[in-house]
Amino acid sequence: MVTILRIGHRIKRDKRITTHLALVARAFGVERLVIAGDKDENLLNTLAKVNSEWGGNLQLKLIPYDDWKTFIHNWKADTRKRIVHLTMYGENLSIFEKSKEFLSLKKLSQGSSDLLVVVGGEKIPGKVFKIADWNIAISNQPHSEVASLAVFLDHIKDNALQIQFSNAIKQIIPSMEGNKILLGNRKNGK
Amino acid sequence: MVTILRIGHRIKRDKRITTHLALVARAFGVERLVIAGDKDENLLNTLAKVNSEWGGNLQLKLIPYDDWKTFIHNWKADTRKRIVHLTMYGENLSIFEKSKEFLSLKKLSQGSSDLLVVVGGEKIPGKVFKIADWNIAISNQPHSEVASLAVFLDHIKDNALQIQFSNAIKQIIPSMEGNKILLGNRKNGK
Repeated sequence: MVTILRIGHRIKRDKRITTHLALVARAFGVERLVIAGDKDENLLNTLAKVNSEWGGNLQLKLIPYDDWKTFIHNWKADTRKRIVHLTMYGENLSIFEKSKEFLSLKKLSQGSSDLLVVVGGEKIPGKVFKIADWNIAISNQPHSEVASLAVFLDHIKDNALQIQFSNAIKQIIPSMEGNKILLGNRKNGK
Repeated sequence: MVTILRIGHRIKRDKRITTHLALVARAFGVERLVIAGDKDENLLNTLAKVNSEWGGNLQLKLIPYDDWKTFIHNWKADTRKRIVHLTMYGENLSIFEKSKEFLSLKKLSQGSSDLLVVVGGEKIPGKVFKIADWNIAISNQPHSEVASLAVFLDHIKDNALQIQFSNAIKQIIPSMEGNKILLGNRKNGK
């Protein structure tokens, strides 16, 4: 199980980017996303609606911006837990994924609840770089935390692109024509 | 060489998503991005600034929304050219990439200028599904065109995560501490 911490969310500026980030987290099988920033009811509603139609289990938690420090501090207090920070300044993923360290990271992501993935936001405080066990770059060029998270999850999780949720009302039947959608009752009434 | 066509761009709603899309295209080594929608000078300026500081060759072209039809029509007129449409309704990439068809798509992306990648925007007209040679899903769940483009490029291009541009003023030296940046003059005065 992977937990994601997004440091920074300003409703006006970030609403769609953070929504895309949350949708990626859900679609790629993440179970918990913590967002430190503005309290954004619309974001909670959007996710609840997607979970309700398409299934899935992503838990979304909004905390005040400054609480990211306590959150990380508590995470570090458990010596079994690790933190990976996605940043353009870090070690390049293409290099890092050939190392033994990467295998241990991958193993953690499949464990019970031991891997925290930290993503920005605008300026990430220098402290985050120091406290992270790994600073990893999904390309060392400036681009997008949405893209970085998706590529990272695709690399650490098996079958991240093929996840289907059992508690869905709508489900797509993949096809080259792209026109098949299955509508039905949820199987398990969740 | 890959060309990307983004169908739909409304300044107010999409400015940051389209900016992230353009940054991903540039960072992952795409050379041309065509955006059908609002004329957005800020988008052009942002990209020009990133190209100027970090190098790169992404050409950005804005066309009126309705011109996507002519653009695709002209593309199809050349029988050597192909179109891939990224859509949650398509064939799943994890399945498709095991096929021979995928190899020919990959080869096209390394050719002179033969592969068009179409991404949304909100509602994509049904015509696009029909005219595309391949409708491919980067997960069959709803998420983000920014994420889809990044994952797709990572799968079809070799070393998409490790691109450095020679005409850069700023360049990152990847490191696990994430604190090394090289500032210098551009090598070739471009």
